[in-house]
Amino acid sequence: SLHRIKASGLKLQLCTNETQATRENFVRKLRAMGFDISVAQVTAPAPAACRLLRERGLRPHLLVHDDLVPEFAEIDKTNPNCVVLGDAAENFTYANLNEAFRLLIGMEKPVLISLGKGRYYKETDGLKLDVGAYMKALEYACDIQAEVVGKPAKRFFESALTELGVPPEQAIMIGDDIVSDVGGAQQCGMRALQVRTGKYRPSDENHPEVKPDAYVNNLAEAVDIILQEL
Amino acid sequence: SLHRIKASGLKLQLCTNETQATRENFVRKLRAMGFDISVAQVTAPAPAACRLLRERGLRPHLLVHDDLVPEFAEIDKTNPNCVVLGDAAENFTYANLNEAFRLLIGMEKPVLISLGKGRYYKETDGLKLDVGAYMKALEYACDIQAEVVGKPAKRFFESALTELGVPPEQAIMIGDDIVSDVGGAQQCGMRALQVRTGKYRPSDENHPEVKPDAYVNNLAEAVDIILQEL
Repeated sequence: SLHRIKASGLKLQLCTNETQATRENFVRKLRAMGFDISVAQVTAPAPAACRLLRERGLRPHLLVHDDLVPEFAEIDKTNPNCVVLGDAAENFTYANLNEAFRLLIGMEKPVLISLGKGRYYKETDGLKLDVGAYMKALEYACDIQAEVVGKPAKRFFESALTELGVPPEQAIMIGDDIVSDVGGAQQCGMRALQVRTGKYRPSDENHPEVKPDAYVNNLAEAVDIILQEL
Repeated sequence: SLHRIKASGLKLQLCTNETQATRENFVRKLRAMGFDISVAQVTAPAPAACRLLRERGLRPHLLVHDDLVPEFAEIDKTNPNCVVLGDAAENFTYANLNEAFRLLIGMEKPVLISLGKGRYYKETDGLKLDVGAYMKALEYACDIQAEVVGKPAKRFFESALTELGVPPEQAIMIGDDIVSDVGGAQQCGMRALQVRTGKYRPSDENHPEVKPDAYVNNLAEAVDIILQEL
């Protein structure tokens, strides 16, 4: 499907909420699976967070996965004035959570930037709490609202559109997550297709707030439809 | 102050949200400090939770402090159909949180019982996230509401009144926490004094929802007032 998109001359950008690896490692994995993707074709929460940190002169304390730390290499992290939270997995220790909390509660106006707000995800050894759960813990303890920079944040899709160099009405999002993918893209003025694979659940078709522009059985069918309409 | 209450013939019950120790150990600590208190004079979340578990035939998975486990000795914990959450402190590991989450998400109707909803507390080595933060994490991940059995739950104050054998209008709560102590007791029909010590903050006096029946500078002053009014 990716080959067909490329051959058609359409532009392609991957929008991922992956925060357990740098884009470099993410792309390396995809290329090893045979997908011809470059780092510039990936929009991910960590680079979006870096842009936001730079714009606002924020120096983060990181509570993220070890493998994500290199994304923040160029960012000043001395004397932190905000906390950046990712899916830290094994780094979600009692001590690390208390440390992030103490930094936040000690700030005059605590700033918590979350690289997503997923509830949970599945790994081979079972379900795991995702970054959203820990975000809620810190929000409650500090009585604050986190700023979410991954999907479904509008800003995140705007970044992807900037990378593509196209206005929202000329872009189509294809995704399996009714809220993060479909809802986020639509709020940004894009059309969005939901694939009936991956995270898709039949109950998504009765979602109280989000309605995709169309359902497709899989990515191949999405590409068929898009190419037909060109 | 406790001596004067006792000497006056007034009944006394301590209402604590302590969930890092059994009532026995809690009382032992108080007695070592010279306070003449018995276990029966302590209302605490764990025994309240045990009553609730028995009434509803619930078998808990415990995510609590090691020192609290003996409070649940008589409770059937095989094949759990609910999760009981306390201030587990060092037991709030990534693995333990995922385990509690998996049990909940696997239940047809997840039941989460929380022994409090405190945001944080202070120890000699600094601020620590309290049980409420972890409760919010599990609530969000499972899209559920926890049942809170500690202060400020109405049920909790009702238990204390039952132990005392007095109706709410004949009881006065003295506490330092505007929401958990004052608000909880008042919702139960008791009057409540806030002491200007401990957790008290001047901003409490502008609390949007809770207004104590009176402020006192400390426990001794509270006892003075109560004895004068007798």
